[in-house]
Amino acid sequence: MTYLSKLLIKNVEIISAPDNEKYFLGIDNDTISVISKEMPTGFENAEIINASDKIAVPGLVNTHTHAAMTLLRSYADDMVLMDWLQNKIWPAEAGLNDEDIYWGTMLSIAEMLKTGTTCFADMYFAMDKVAQAVNETGIRASLSRGLVGLTPDADEKLQDNEMLFKNWHGKADGRIRVMFGPHAPYTCPVSYLKKVVAKAGELNAEIHMHLCETAGEVSDCVKEHNMTPIKLMNSLDMFDCGTLAAHCVHVSEADLDIMADKKVRVAHNPQSNLKLASGIAPVPAMLKRGIIVGLGTDGTSSNNNLDLLEECRLAAMLHKGISGDPLLIPAQEALKLATKQGASALGFTDVGEIEVGQKADIVLYDMQKPYWYPRHDRVSLLVYAASATDADTVIVNGKVLMKNGELLEMDVEKIYAEANMRGHRLTR
Amino acid sequence: MTYLSKLLIKNVEIISAPDNEKYFLGIDNDTISVISKEMPTGFENAEIINASDKIAVPGLVNTHTHAAMTLLRSYADDMVLMDWLQNKIWPAEAGLNDEDIYWGTMLSIAEMLKTGTTCFADMYFAMDKVAQAVNETGIRASLSRGLVGLTPDADEKLQDNEMLFKNWHGKADGRIRVMFGPHAPYTCPVSYLKKVVAKAGELNAEIHMHLCETAGEVSDCVKEHNMTPIKLMNSLDMFDCGTLAAHCVHVSEADLDIMADKKVRVAHNPQSNLKLASGIAPVPAMLKRGIIVGLGTDGTSSNNNLDLLEECRLAAMLHKGISGDPLLIPAQEALKLATKQGASALGFTDVGEIEVGQKADIVLYDMQKPYWYPRHDRVSLLVYAASATDADTVIVNGKVLMKNGELLEMDVEKIYAEANMRGHRLTR
Repeated sequence: MTYLSKLLIKNVEIISAPDNEKYFLGIDNDTISVISKEMPTGFENAEIINASDKIAVPGLVNTHTHAAMTLLRSYADDMVLMDWLQNKIWPAEAGLNDEDIYWGTMLSIAEMLKTGTTCFADMYFAMDKVAQAVNETGIRASLSRGLVGLTPDADEKLQDNEMLFKNWHGKADGRIRVMFGPHAPYTCPVSYLKKVVAKAGELNAEIHMHLCETAGEVSDCVKEHNMTPIKLMNSLDMFDCGTLAAHCVHVSEADLDIMADKKVRVAHNPQSNLKLASGIAPVPAMLKRGIIVGLGTDGTSSNNNLDLLEECRLAAMLHKGISGDPLLIPAQEALKLATKQGASALGFTDVGEIEVGQKADIVLYDMQKPYWYPRHDRVSLLVYAASATDADTVIVNGKVLMKNGELLEMDVEKIYAEANMRGHRLTR
Repeated sequence: MTYLSKLLIKNVEIISAPDNEKYFLGIDNDTISVISKEMPTGFENAEIINASDKIAVPGLVNTHTHAAMTLLRSYADDMVLMDWLQNKIWPAEAGLNDEDIYWGTMLSIAEMLKTGTTCFADMYFAMDKVAQAVNETGIRASLSRGLVGLTPDADEKLQDNEMLFKNWHGKADGRIRVMFGPHAPYTCPVSYLKKVVAKAGELNAEIHMHLCETAGEVSDCVKEHNMTPIKLMNSLDMFDCGTLAAHCVHVSEADLDIMADKKVRVAHNPQSNLKLASGIAPVPAMLKRGIIVGLGTDGTSSNNNLDLLEECRLAAMLHKGISGDPLLIPAQEALKLATKQGASALGFTDVGEIEVGQKADIVLYDMQKPYWYPRHDRVSLLVYAASATDADTVIVNGKVLMKNGELLEMDVEKIYAEANMRGHRLTR
C-alpha cells in the first residue's frame, strides 16, 4: 500500500478532549505526530481533511469474530444451538471454498469500516485468504487459524497456523498479527492442546480461544477433567503464551483469580451471548480485578452484524440492568473497552487512543444528526445515542480508507453481489 | 395539511411478503388501497416513488416516551435514579417553558422520522405545544398530560388533560389520540387517581401510566395499600377505561393475570430499564397470556435515543439471554411488537401492517448496505442486522414526510440550533 506521508485533519473535535474545542490533528506516515490548537508546522503540503462538526474517536476494535461467516447472515436464526450448528451452520460451512472466505471477509471488512471498526480479531479457516483481504483493504487485524483437534487433519491445521504466523505475523506494515486458534475445550483434546501450546511457545505466539461460552461446556469439562476450562488451560501452561479468551460467560471466582494472575484477556460478546441464550459474562467482576476486557460481535450468524458501537452500548446498559447498579460500566469506560482495551487484548500496544505516538486509527463521526443534540456530553452521545453509521471518515494506520461515507478502495457493489451469490450457493 | 390524492410505490419489496418479490403499493389519500404485482389501474396520474432495492416496513411505533426531554439528552448519565432526578433532571425541568417543549419535541420528531418511527406515545406537559408539533410535522401520536397529584395545581393539570382531549382527540386527520396521563402510583394519591378515572370514564378516554417500573415502587405501594400497583389500579377500576401501562418490570403472576383479564396493554422499554438498573420486564410471560405488548424508548435522558429498531433488537435478544431459551421472541414476533402490537397498544386500530385498508404509515429501508447481505431472510436482516438510519423514505397517513433521507417539511438546522441553545440554557 502507498502512504501519503502527511495528513492533517483540521477543525476537529476529539472525544478525549474537552467539549467544543477544535484541534489540528497531524499524522506522519502511520502515526499521530501532533495534536494542537494552532496550525502545526511541517504540514504545509499535507493532505487536508476539514472535519467541521465531526468528532475524532479512536477506531473501534472488534476482539472476536469469524468474518467470512457473514455469508450465512440471516440464514438461520432463532434456533437452539446444537440444532443450529448441526443442521444449518456446519452443513453450509462444509461447502465453503477459499474464494467464498475471501469474499465473505471482504463483505465483513466493508461493514466494519463503514461502522467505525478499524481492527478485528478473526478466527476461521483459509486464513491466508483473510490475510490477503486485510492486506488489500488496509484494515488492521489479529488472525488465528481455528484449530479443531478432533478431525484427522488436526495436525495439518496446526501447520496451517504455523505457516500463517510465519507468513503474516507483523506484516502488512505491522497491521497484521497472528495468534494460534485452538477452537474450544470441547473440540480440542488435551493431547492436541499440548501440541498447540508447545508450537505457540516455540514461536513466541499468543493464543485466541473460545472459553467458557456455555454452562454445558463448563460442566462437561469439569466432568471429564475435574477442572473448569480455565483451570484446565492453566494446567497446560496455555496462559503463559498470552491468551485472548472469547466469551468467558461462565467463570467462577477462582477462574477469575487465575485469569487476573495470568493476564488472560477477554473478548466480551454481549449480543451473541444473549442471542444464543448463553448468558451474560461477569464483566464488572473482571474489570474490578484489572482483567483486560475488549468487546466483540462474534460471527454474524449469531449477532447478526459487526456493529461494535452497538456492543459498546449494550455492554454499558446490560451490566447495569442485571446487577441493579446504574453506576456500572459508565459511558467513558465502555468506550475504553471498545478501543484501547480491545487493542491491548489483541496485542497492539500503540493503538486505541488519539494521542501523539499512537498509530493513526481514527474515525470521524458526523454529528449533524438529531441524536447528537443537544451537545451536553460527547462521550455520552457517542456511547448511548449515536449510530455506527455516523462514521464518515475512517483512517487506519495513517491511510484514509473511507471519506464522506464512501470506501475509497473497495468495490462494494462487486462485494455485495459476490457475497449474495455465494451465500445463496452455500445454503441451497 | 394537504394530501396528494394518489401515491404509487413501485418495484418495492414488502417485509411481510415472500423475499425477492416486487410489488406496486398504491395509496389513496391516507390509506393503502392496493398491493399488486401488476401496475394497478387508477394510478396513472399518481405521484410515483421508485423503491428499487428498498423494502417497505410498517412504520415503527414508540409506545412510551417524553419527547421534549430530548433537550436533556447526555446532560446526566450513569447516576443513581434519585440522585439523577433530584439533582439533575427535576431542577433542569423546572426551567422548561412552552417554547422549549415545542423545540424539544420537534427535535424528537425529526429523530423519530429519520429512524423509521411514524407513531409515538408521549406523556409530558405543555402538551398543546406537543400537539402543535405533531399536527405540523405530520407524524402520528397518542398524547397524554403527565398528571402528578401531589402538587397544589393537581386539579389544573387534570383540567389541562381534559382540554387536551377535547381539543385534539381524533384531530389532525385522525393522527392524534389523547389519553389521560396519571404519572405513577408514587406521585398520585388514591383520591386523585379516583378523579382521573372518573374524568376519563366520563369522556370515554383511555389512560397511560407508569406502572411497576422499579422494585421500590412496588414494595412501597404494597406497604401503603397492601396491594401491588396493578391490584390497586384494578381496585380503582382504572383498567376498565383501557390502560397503557409503561414498564411493568416488577409484576407478579397474579398481576399478570389481572392484566390479561383487563386487557391492560404494556409499553416495554428494555433499554431504559437496563440503563436505570430497574430490571427486565417478564415479556415472554405477558405474551404467553395474550397481553398486548408494544415497545418504547422512554425519554432520551434515560436511553439516550429514540431508535425503536434498537429496542426491537434488544427485546429479541435480551429475553433469550436471561431465560436461556434461544427460541423466545423470534425476529418476526419482535417486529410485530414494534409495529402492529404497538399501534394496538396506543388504540390505533388500522395502523401497523402493510395491508389494504390500513393507514399508510410506511418506511422504505435502503438495503444497499453491507449488513443487508446476503439476503437469506429480510425480517432477520431488519431485526438483527440493519441500522435505523437505513430509513430512506417515510410516509405517514399517506403523506411523504421524508425522501432520500431528507425531511421534506422540517427545517432540521433550525431545530438542531434551537434544541442545542435551549438544552444548554436549561442546564446552566
